[in-house]
Parts: sequence; C-alpha cells; structure tokens
Amino acid sequence: MSGTGEKRAVVLLSGGLDSTTTLAVARDGGLACYALTFDYGQRHRQELTAARSVAEALGAVEHRIVKLDLSAAGGFGRSALTDAIDVPKDGPADEGVPVTYVPARNTIFLSVALGYAEVMGSFDIFIGVNAVDYSGYPDCRPAFVQAFEALANVATAGAVEGRGRYVIHAPLIELTKAQIIRTGLALGVDYGLTRSCYDPVPDGGPCGRCDACRLRLAGFAQAGATDPLTYP
Amino acid sequence: MSGTGEKRAVVLLSGGLDSTTTLAVARDGGLACYALTFDYGQRHRQELTAARSVAEALGAVEHRIVKLDLSAAGGFGRSALTDAIDVPKDGPADEGVPVTYVPARNTIFLSVALGYAEVMGSFDIFIGVNAVDYSGYPDCRPAFVQAFEALANVATAGAVEGRGRYVIHAPLIELTKAQIIRTGLALGVDYGLTRSCYDPVPDGGPCGRCDACRLRLAGFAQAGATDPLTYP
Repeated sequence: MSGTGEKRAVVLLSGGLDSTTTLAVARDGGLACYALTFDYGQRHRQELTAARSVAEALGAVEHRIVKLDLSAAGGFGRSALTDAIDVPKDGPADEGVPVTYVPARNTIFLSVALGYAEVMGSFDIFIGVNAVDYSGYPDCRPAFVQAFEALANVATAGAVEGRGRYVIHAPLIELTKAQIIRTGLALGVDYGLTRSCYDPVPDGGPCGRCDACRLRLAGFAQAGATDPLTYP
Repeated sequence: MSGTGEKRAVVLLSGGLDSTTTLAVARDGGLACYALTFDYGQRHRQELTAARSVAEALGAVEHRIVKLDLSAAGGFGRSALTDAIDVPKDGPADEGVPVTYVPARNTIFLSVALGYAEVMGSFDIFIGVNAVDYSGYPDCRPAFVQAFEALANVATAGAVEGRGRYVIHAPLIELTKAQIIRTGLALGVDYGLTRSCYDPVPDGGPCGRCDACRLRLAGFAQAGATDPLTYP
C-alpha cells in the first residue's frame, strides 16, 4: 500500500504483459498508482479480470474500469480486436499497419487518462507502449508519445496555470519483449496473472498462435525464462 | 442532402450557437458532414435535442450521439456543468479557469472524433472552439487546436501511411460572438433551434444569467440582431 504524500500517477493497465510491467516500474519509482482499464468491447475479455488481479498484486491505490461504448461513432471500427474480422494466426504481416490496429485507440485512452489525472491532481501518466514490437501501430511510437505530451501541456488548466507539467511516461518504449520480461521479473511481477492473447481458447487460456502470443513466447524464450501460462 | 463524391468531414456538434455555426460553415464549404454529439451527463440536456434538430436542418449526412460515461474515471469531475457546483450567475470571473471548465473535455471529444474520422475515411474535423469568448478554457485556444492536429498526424494509420493529412478546422477561433452570429445568419442558420444556457429554467428555456446566456445575448446585441429564444 502507498503512504500519504506519495506523488500520484495514472497508469493505463490492460492486464497484459506490457502494461503490467509498466505498473511495476511506476510502483518501483515510489509513485502512488491509480490504474485505469478500458472495457471497449474487446474480444479478449479476460484482460479485464487480469487487470483487476494485477492492480491488486502490484499495490495500486485504486483500479478503475471505464466502459467506453463507441459503437455510435464507428466503435473503434474495422479492427480484428473488436469486429468479426479473423485474428491472424500465421505470424505478423511483413509491413504496414496490421488488422488488429484499433483507430485512435491510444489517443482516446490517453485523453481519458488525462482528464482523470487532472481531477486527481496527478501530472504523471504511464502507458506501456512499445516501439520495438509495436508491429506497425502508429500510436505506439515515440513521436506519438511526445505529441500527446505536448498536447497535454496546452490542453489542461493544471498545466496552463503552472501547477505542474504533464509527463507521459512510456518506460518500455525502447525495450525488446525479452528486456521487458526481465525488467518485470526483477521487480517480482507474476506474469501468470497477465493475459496477452488476442483470441483465447474457450477456457480463457492463450491460443499460442496470434501475434500477441507469438511475441510473448519469443520474449520469454529470449529472456531465458518460462511463461507461467499454459498453452495448447 | 449531399451528393456522392463530396469530401467528408466530422463536425463536433453540441447543439449550441458556436458548433451550429461551425456545421453551417462546413456545409457551405461543400463538405459532406458527419455530426457527432456527446452525451456526457451534462446538466443542460436540452442540448442533445437541439443537436438533433440542427443536424437535420443543416443537412448533415449523419448525426451520431455517443454516450460517454466517465464517472469511473472522475466523470469529467469537479465542473459546474456535470456536478452539484452552482453555475455562476453574476458574470464571468475576472481571471483564471472558470468552474464550468470540464477537465480534458475537448481533448476527449476530438480523440473520439479522430477515431470516427479514421473509420469514415475523413481527414477533416471541425470544432467550434472560440478563443475570443473562451472565458479561460485552455482547450479553446489556437495552441490546443494546433497541438491536437500535430498529434492526429502521428497517431493514425491514415496519416502515417500517407493517405492524407488531418486538419482540425476551428473556423470560429478568432471571431467575436457577434461575428459568429453574423456568419451564421448570412448562411441561413435558425438560431431558434440552438441552445446555449448552462442552467435552463424548468420549461427548457434559457436562464438569461449564466455566462453562456450573457455571452450569447451580448453577441446578438453587438451583431444588431435579435435572439429568437425567449428569456425570462
């Protein structure tokens, strides 16, 4: 549990491997963490349960799940993560933005996190984006994080009135998956609580074949560690 | 109605005077307009009905209302527009951000509009922010609009893959309220359909005393025109 007087941070937490490691890094930095998870109709619903377990295990002060029903505005449209498009199982495409890209997702998530941070009096927002394994997602790159940070510092009363300067922390952005896993293991993260699969098997376990499972398994192998999850 | 082949635009439409004029400007520019309204639990609910009427009267191709329930994340917190804080009735405060400021509101609205635009294949987003009468709102200034445009062009697949460049249009940003009203009247806008009041009287009419009513009435007076709404 966090003591009084700790600096507050808002941490975007999906319940996956990257955001869980990000929460561990923020806690290790002595921050009082307010975890924020989005329920946006994702097919991999076991993420939400995983996020609850992770927030508790890593000592978040609060964990909030925000339901975002954007079906009236295209519903994050045309993505294999929310629609009936098949999740690719034959490895990443060679180039371009993958079908699992969800339009403006991280922009919307960070915007809501910014409003939450402003209400909470926090100027530090953590997001577990990663440019090494980002598989072509435009909103996982350093240029995106920098642009959002610049926006936050002109968009909000707290920044404009000089009470603080927003920092968007993306501590994993230059790490390989293996480095992320080593970082988390060194901080005592139990990756058995996390979920990464885009298309879980009926009992909720990972499929082992989607891009997310492939990146995760390769990461554990390169880190010389064993994924505690059970694969088919 | 719009013909085929028209360039598409997403227009944020609250049902107020400014966003209605913005929609009229976008239509006058020959754009096929997709209007987007947010239901975020605002106390001035008659805005939603006004937005429906305005979208129809001004020939929007579509009008969508997105319900944003952010109560789990501070609910746009601590604003007189969504909470039990009294709406000021004694004129604008001399300086600083007013209590009617809603944390990160325009950032969140533009982010959802960006996702909608990406799904619709539009690169043009219109917002009726105004820096002259903005009453201290940080997210109504040119610096905010420019920062969001920069963000949009690194955040999205369409921009990164070179299919287009996002433009955030804020056609009212340098206009006085009187100039906005003259612009709308010249384009045939029926301001009787619009609603601006932060705290309407029981029959849904404007209070005449809140900041929004005061700015509106002063604008009509300066424009040498009569507000078609009935005031107490």
